[in-house]
Amino acid sequence: MARITPSAPRGMRDFGPEESFRRNYIFDTIRQVYQQYGYEPIETPAMENLETLTGKYGEEGDRLIFKVLNSGDYFSDLQKTDIGLDSRKALKHISSKALRYDLTVPFARYVVQYQHKITMPFKRYQIQPVWRADNPQKGRYREFYQCDADVIGSGSLLYEMEFVQIFNEVLNQLKINGFAIKINNRKILSGIAESTGVGDLIIPFTIALDKLDKIGEEKVLEEMLKVGISEGAVEKIRPLLHVQGNNAELLDFLNGFLSGSETGLQGVKELRQVIETSEKLGISNGKVEVDLTLARGLDYYTGCIFEVKVPDSGFGSIAGGGRYDNLTGIFGLDGLSGCGISFGADRIYDLLLQENLFPAYTGNRTDFLFLNFGDAEALFSFEILQTLRKKGFLGAVYPDAAKIKKQFSYADKIQARYVVIVGTDEMQAGKISIKNMADGQQETLSVADFTENLSQYRFHA
Amino acid sequence: MARITPSAPRGMRDFGPEESFRRNYIFDTIRQVYQQYGYEPIETPAMENLETLTGKYGEEGDRLIFKVLNSGDYFSDLQKTDIGLDSRKALKHISSKALRYDLTVPFARYVVQYQHKITMPFKRYQIQPVWRADNPQKGRYREFYQCDADVIGSGSLLYEMEFVQIFNEVLNQLKINGFAIKINNRKILSGIAESTGVGDLIIPFTIALDKLDKIGEEKVLEEMLKVGISEGAVEKIRPLLHVQGNNAELLDFLNGFLSGSETGLQGVKELRQVIETSEKLGISNGKVEVDLTLARGLDYYTGCIFEVKVPDSGFGSIAGGGRYDNLTGIFGLDGLSGCGISFGADRIYDLLLQENLFPAYTGNRTDFLFLNFGDAEALFSFEILQTLRKKGFLGAVYPDAAKIKKQFSYADKIQARYVVIVGTDEMQAGKISIKNMADGQQETLSVADFTENLSQYRFHA
Repeated sequence: MARITPSAPRGMRDFGPEESFRRNYIFDTIRQVYQQYGYEPIETPAMENLETLTGKYGEEGDRLIFKVLNSGDYFSDLQKTDIGLDSRKALKHISSKALRYDLTVPFARYVVQYQHKITMPFKRYQIQPVWRADNPQKGRYREFYQCDADVIGSGSLLYEMEFVQIFNEVLNQLKINGFAIKINNRKILSGIAESTGVGDLIIPFTIALDKLDKIGEEKVLEEMLKVGISEGAVEKIRPLLHVQGNNAELLDFLNGFLSGSETGLQGVKELRQVIETSEKLGISNGKVEVDLTLARGLDYYTGCIFEVKVPDSGFGSIAGGGRYDNLTGIFGLDGLSGCGISFGADRIYDLLLQENLFPAYTGNRTDFLFLNFGDAEALFSFEILQTLRKKGFLGAVYPDAAKIKKQFSYADKIQARYVVIVGTDEMQAGKISIKNMADGQQETLSVADFTENLSQYRFHA
Repeated sequence: MARITPSAPRGMRDFGPEESFRRNYIFDTIRQVYQQYGYEPIETPAMENLETLTGKYGEEGDRLIFKVLNSGDYFSDLQKTDIGLDSRKALKHISSKALRYDLTVPFARYVVQYQHKITMPFKRYQIQPVWRADNPQKGRYREFYQCDADVIGSGSLLYEMEFVQIFNEVLNQLKINGFAIKINNRKILSGIAESTGVGDLIIPFTIALDKLDKIGEEKVLEEMLKVGISEGAVEKIRPLLHVQGNNAELLDFLNGFLSGSETGLQGVKELRQVIETSEKLGISNGKVEVDLTLARGLDYYTGCIFEVKVPDSGFGSIAGGGRYDNLTGIFGLDGLSGCGISFGADRIYDLLLQENLFPAYTGNRTDFLFLNFGDAEALFSFEILQTLRKKGFLGAVYPDAAKIKKQFSYADKIQARYVVIVGTDEMQAGKISIKNMADGQQETLSVADFTENLSQYRFHA
């Protein structure tokens, strides 16, 4: 019988060395900036009790949660019922655990479970994989990492300002250029709904508004009528479509437009503070931008909403977030305001690849490959290599005394920067020959001269 | 209805900030040393296809694998059979995926799947969680991390020597003192079996031998007879129980004792090379030690076997590994020799805690807490804080203008090193007051003087 080559499950990925190094470069950058801003790591288990997850993501979400079969004789509980082979009804009898679907619900569970041990405001970050039984397609996987930071237990606007700085810092460290940190405020949208008569239709309203650049004013207004916004409301909205200008001008306009709505004015005030502080502190190689069309997560967010994009990159948002008021309400703990953001590591990876922004070596560098001329020479080389490693160089001794041509071709394959040659003669004389693989130059020097003058061999990015 | 506080599943753990920082300190140390030695990261998915895992860990292992229920109407396939509610027979009809049980089988699957893309020898490390449906008890969890490094595709003894250096480097970086890197060689045990007549009973033989210190020579020999080793063999073994001395003396003895076994002599030669090179390169704060009682994984290992212990610590082995010849044979790819090690992160964590070896701050340090005297002062402070963050300091502005007593008590709670006071007067004068929380000293200086002379505030471990 022919063996089938084993593979990873559908929609799930293996990451080889280069991908892993590059992914770690992204994760480490995010992690280090989160920590610099006082966010502390927590980890929750891959599995949660099934009842912790069900009902939190809507009916479609429930369907996409990966359920874990109970251990042992998993049918024993079901056998005591007359349910039989009914997938929906039988579930709770054969599965009590499931894989987490996101990091938000486990975090909410964590905050409620440890509420008496946590010092508020609690700033946590969490970089862990999540699983969704989605239909796999380009850019959509059944296992992927989320990189969340949240602060809970304070309504202070300082955190919104801090998150803008975190976006700025992470994107600059990753050398991403020309990004836009788009900001909106749920209260402004409520104000618009209140003062124009859009009412409950605020989500279709923002979706239509978002198309302004593409389809023009008249088509946008038509679409608003189509989704049920009244003619009176549409007339009131018209001035919103004409507003031009920078952030300050836009904020001034909104202040007038929303003068009749207390909630709306509060939203403008918050947005202004965040925008002004961010502009004062300075955003490098990017900008902050008032964007009234941010609609994502509107049923969840209650204050500022963030979305980060790189216009013309071909990618959607690479980060986002906002303020919410009731994260832990699902577990019976009300009244905790919080604010959080998340980076889309997979999209950032694809963006860095497309724009050629990854460092030349993310860890997979071989500074020195020592050729192998036999056991004694290899051991002699191994000892020198140990000295180099202690000084931060990367390298290897070729494992066997293979033909020299084969060893050199290996050096080419792994892109070794230098090849070190220690044959019997060199070893007996306490010398080495070192060949620079970039320019082919070769020199012979004593081991001591070599290990005491290593700075010329250091890699400079 | 009273709500039940949600919790993590049985046998699985949440890690709060301090635990996570400390765990990351361990993982980062291991990861960085692995990389220094040329091991490159790979990542495999949490799930594998069920047939990749089953049959690889014995019957008991199969039982302990967490199976994932198929998505959607998971009973639809089972309904087409007449199996009904038979847990054993129904499994493959309702589950096609499972959570990985270790990192070894996924690595073997990876090597076979990508064999034509991998450059051999392939040095990979993998630090990821694994899941086992074991009965939870002290020190045994249903989710835990493994930290594996393996090199595959070469039989060179250089890798055994390298792994001893990796043990030495990791343990020294973690400041673990007095460790013993115990080494044995499967070929020596085969040689003993061959030349004494122990034969297939080599595992019970090593288990009995291991008790020598505790129960003495006569009881050990009795136990050997009890497990079926012949009287003739036991007589031949007797000299082995008397051997005393350092590694060199032990190796010399073995050379004589095994003079009739070619395999045995090969084992002694390998062991001698590894021991001698390791002693020559030097093991700091620990030692390498020939230990003939290492029996773990004997059915899997074929050459060197490692185990690292800290005698008198109360902990079992904190790392281990060895050489094997047939990792990928389970997937039909024969003839690849490899060598690998693994660190037990949970045990190392407990050991560092017990011996008080964690750094004072693993990341959770607050250098500066700025008190909050109102919006304008807080924004002014926030700008100064941004300057500090860019220079590598950690800090926060207290989120609201709460009572000063409350803010100071928060500073105590989070163990802030300095409290910075910027009230209206200070802000208008461009000054700050800074209080050293260790000695209570307070000074007032200009913002410029402060931010340009920060070195005195740096934390020194």
